[in-house]
Amino acid sequence: MNKILRINMKTKEIVYESPKDEYLKTGGRGLIAKIMLAEVNPTCDPLGSENKLIIANGMLTGTNVSSANRISIGAKSPLTGGIKESNGGGITAMWLAQLGLKALIVEDMPEDDNWYYIKIDKNGCTLEPANEYAGMGTFEYCEKMIEKYPDCAVTCIGPAGENLYHSAGIATMDKEKKPNRYSGRGGLGAVMGSKKIKGIVAAEKGSVTIADKEKFSEAFKAYTKIIMDAPSSANYRTLGTASTVRVTNDLTGLPTRNFRGEKFEHADKISGESLYEFIKQRGGEGKTTHACMPGCVIQCSNVVPDKDGKTIVSPLEYETIGLMGSNLGIGDFDAIAKLNAMCNDFGIDTIEVGAAMGVAMEAGEGQFGDASSAFKMMDEIINGTVFGKVLACGATITGKVLGVSHVPAVNGQAMPAYDPRAIKGMGATFATSPMGADHTYGPVIKTDKGWAEASKGSQMFMAILDSLGICMFTRAAIANEKQLLVDLVNGFTGYDLDVDWLEKVSTETIKDELRFNELAGFTKENYRMPESFMKTEIKSTGDVFDLTEEELDELRL
Amino acid sequence: MNKILRINMKTKEIVYESPKDEYLKTGGRGLIAKIMLAEVNPTCDPLGSENKLIIANGMLTGTNVSSANRISIGAKSPLTGGIKESNGGGITAMWLAQLGLKALIVEDMPEDDNWYYIKIDKNGCTLEPANEYAGMGTFEYCEKMIEKYPDCAVTCIGPAGENLYHSAGIATMDKEKKPNRYSGRGGLGAVMGSKKIKGIVAAEKGSVTIADKEKFSEAFKAYTKIIMDAPSSANYRTLGTASTVRVTNDLTGLPTRNFRGEKFEHADKISGESLYEFIKQRGGEGKTTHACMPGCVIQCSNVVPDKDGKTIVSPLEYETIGLMGSNLGIGDFDAIAKLNAMCNDFGIDTIEVGAAMGVAMEAGEGQFGDASSAFKMMDEIINGTVFGKVLACGATITGKVLGVSHVPAVNGQAMPAYDPRAIKGMGATFATSPMGADHTYGPVIKTDKGWAEASKGSQMFMAILDSLGICMFTRAAIANEKQLLVDLVNGFTGYDLDVDWLEKVSTETIKDELRFNELAGFTKENYRMPESFMKTEIKSTGDVFDLTEEELDELRL
Repeated sequence: MNKILRINMKTKEIVYESPKDEYLKTGGRGLIAKIMLAEVNPTCDPLGSENKLIIANGMLTGTNVSSANRISIGAKSPLTGGIKESNGGGITAMWLAQLGLKALIVEDMPEDDNWYYIKIDKNGCTLEPANEYAGMGTFEYCEKMIEKYPDCAVTCIGPAGENLYHSAGIATMDKEKKPNRYSGRGGLGAVMGSKKIKGIVAAEKGSVTIADKEKFSEAFKAYTKIIMDAPSSANYRTLGTASTVRVTNDLTGLPTRNFRGEKFEHADKISGESLYEFIKQRGGEGKTTHACMPGCVIQCSNVVPDKDGKTIVSPLEYETIGLMGSNLGIGDFDAIAKLNAMCNDFGIDTIEVGAAMGVAMEAGEGQFGDASSAFKMMDEIINGTVFGKVLACGATITGKVLGVSHVPAVNGQAMPAYDPRAIKGMGATFATSPMGADHTYGPVIKTDKGWAEASKGSQMFMAILDSLGICMFTRAAIANEKQLLVDLVNGFTGYDLDVDWLEKVSTETIKDELRFNELAGFTKENYRMPESFMKTEIKSTGDVFDLTEEELDELRL
Repeated sequence: MNKILRINMKTKEIVYESPKDEYLKTGGRGLIAKIMLAEVNPTCDPLGSENKLIIANGMLTGTNVSSANRISIGAKSPLTGGIKESNGGGITAMWLAQLGLKALIVEDMPEDDNWYYIKIDKNGCTLEPANEYAGMGTFEYCEKMIEKYPDCAVTCIGPAGENLYHSAGIATMDKEKKPNRYSGRGGLGAVMGSKKIKGIVAAEKGSVTIADKEKFSEAFKAYTKIIMDAPSSANYRTLGTASTVRVTNDLTGLPTRNFRGEKFEHADKISGESLYEFIKQRGGEGKTTHACMPGCVIQCSNVVPDKDGKTIVSPLEYETIGLMGSNLGIGDFDAIAKLNAMCNDFGIDTIEVGAAMGVAMEAGEGQFGDASSAFKMMDEIINGTVFGKVLACGATITGKVLGVSHVPAVNGQAMPAYDPRAIKGMGATFATSPMGADHTYGPVIKTDKGWAEASKGSQMFMAILDSLGICMFTRAAIANEKQLLVDLVNGFTGYDLDVDWLEKVSTETIKDELRFNELAGFTKENYRMPESFMKTEIKSTGDVFDLTEEELDELRL
């Protein structure tokens, strides 16, 4: 896992490079930040020739370490105008690492209108014609790839990315070879589409070498046991991320009817507990627990079956339940799961689209609580009507077009399913993240400390996990296990790193990201909560988002 | 002309204040910049309670000095997110000055849904109910006001401003009491709408006192003679601003089919010379020359009649011919004039909407050259369809929604009718103006100097004219007559100012505006040309916009 594969879409040149020294001891999000800062003009048009699409493997990716094979994708975001890294589960990152890649950089764009896919195997990389796949949903495209390459791992875009929709995501195959895992945020699917790349296909499996097998194995066992034994893991395994519904609803923080600050009267119908029962009762292909990548012992994923036991979607997760469920007033798993499946196949972010639909419903386009309104909007998106294109531009543009001022978004990117007035730690992260409103940048739902301090700590730790390639659902279990993480890296790579190195990765990653944005024209005024969430109270509690400007300014490194 | 009238739309409090000392020796745009910087939170929501709508009279407004009664309106712009001043012709500014006002500040917004108009006469100011006028076009509303107040001057918004459309302008009555003169840019109509103000009505005429009649009269005569005798004035009087069509088309700078950098094959059909003949031939109510305000000796305005001699629109000006004519591929005065009239009555900026329609046509929504496409889009705007709302959001949002990257706009505001690759002085002004792409901020079509230097000189001089209340069409005549301008001010006010004061007004105005934007979060990266105009050549000349970042940075004070 030591090469950088660079593909120029204008010249079609394909080069394997040795990474610069400074790239060796970071990975994933941290490496993306370094490459972006070194190579990408921060003021470039995100959908123009100067932007680059980068996939960077985490420091542990390629191994069997549980939850350490997240795919990390980055570029300048068409939604926020700043740097974006979006990671997701699935199998592709592991396969790319096992084919020897530390990172993949796609640069420039073709001058003609042809589509391509990137094929990588042990013999190297080729650009393959893909015009015949243009317009295909992600599921059909993956089936076509499996026909050609029976054992493959695919990461791809759907029509949303091809159409350069700003809320387009990038889908990655799960263990069952379905494109169910999403790097959904920031409109990275549009960046991939702008470069005319339909898919990235690891067409065979390789392997990685463990430098110090003994050290690695020892750390591996300790790490696995900690993750296995953690109560948080058990919770994810049983109820999945949907377990959060009850927690946030109790705090009046579950978004309800465009983040209007009310508890959702049907929260019990869409809770983790109800989802568990729903899946159990339906049976068939349904699974209450499921791993999205090999080796994961948490297995937070699930498979939601329809009445006949056939899969509607896998997984159904908290953010989608919040944004396409309660945020639209919909308390019905069948509807939410179907909307989710439509988004996955079309290749669009459920958070951004759910938030945009909530804004549209507030403007009177459709009715809160009426699932048929949401399906109609989804059809408009898929059919590419002007209204559909507005929604596909995300919540901020939808608010501007339809004249809604209460828009749950920061720097152009919609808020995940936490009302920042109730869950102020998430609010602090939404406001100060260089990536727009992004819960994964530093999740905080509850804390004994101050909100700002808790957000900062979470941001620092997430930068570590994201650079190692590790899923954030390990964080409760391993928050105090930094030495173990270092031991895993040393065992795998043969380096002799220490905990200070890990802290440095964290600090540098965040600083690099903030610096990129600064060069793109961001100032402290970009790191603020929208006025409406600072002024409009949650009626039942009187809460507004009231972290001060000073607190927010201090949160940035 | 010495009071500031302050109206709070939440409390309905109305107060006449004496201006602070620092407000006394500036006016119009310069005074707006000072008030904005002192009173308005630069990071506020432009359509929220913290923004203010300001009308400030120029230092010479209220007198009979030719072309010195421009109405100057300012606020934070919903289009650009920065400071905006937009001035226009007509009679209201003179009337407000003659009723004793130096400025009018409207603050906060009502908590209920009622509409109001502001009535001002010699007895003071009242807020009058206006629900019965909501939804009315500007023409019908002005007729209603004339029924109530037979001798009045009205400034108002149409449905576009009521609906908070970001391209809504503010209309002012001309001498014939028709709302034909526009403070069109920056979406100030939406700010007025957000405060639930349908109109501002000067319900009777007052007068101003000339402090030093002899000095004033002497300067007045000299100034009038210079304006009268200037060749530029004769040109405006004969051909109006439409005379620019030939000039810019010859330079390949007339926008054609979404600023695609081609000469327009029908330019001769929409030139100033053709417009003159067109009006002459039709006769009836048509006028080839016409003054928009009392005392103006330039009289650049016109009245365009239909086949039966009835007025279609007054005036038809260069910017509209460029944006709704050649930019849409339309070479037909009847169509352009009708589109213009529809915009005027609905209360929306022809530049912004024309640019948005050009972007939409490039995206395949309608056909270049097909006027019926443009009328259909205009109907969508008026009927408030989602597509209409997209267009009414302006060119930038239209480009984002429809996926067009070649969008003629800077900081969210559409370019007036000058391709910045051919007419680089305008491009320099578009890029560095704190108000988005705005030709009136520092017009330069041709120059013997460098483009940047010419833009800077023009920007400095326009800040003077805009603070005195003087129309930019005097500038060729009086560019070297600063002492005369000072004499006019001294004669009118009794002050003892000198030319240094005039330079100070200019410098301070621009600095105040840039400072407001800086506090709003603007950086040097906001003062740039869009990538597409720097990279895409005009085919026939090879020109791109190639002023360097250093040149642009130096252009800001």
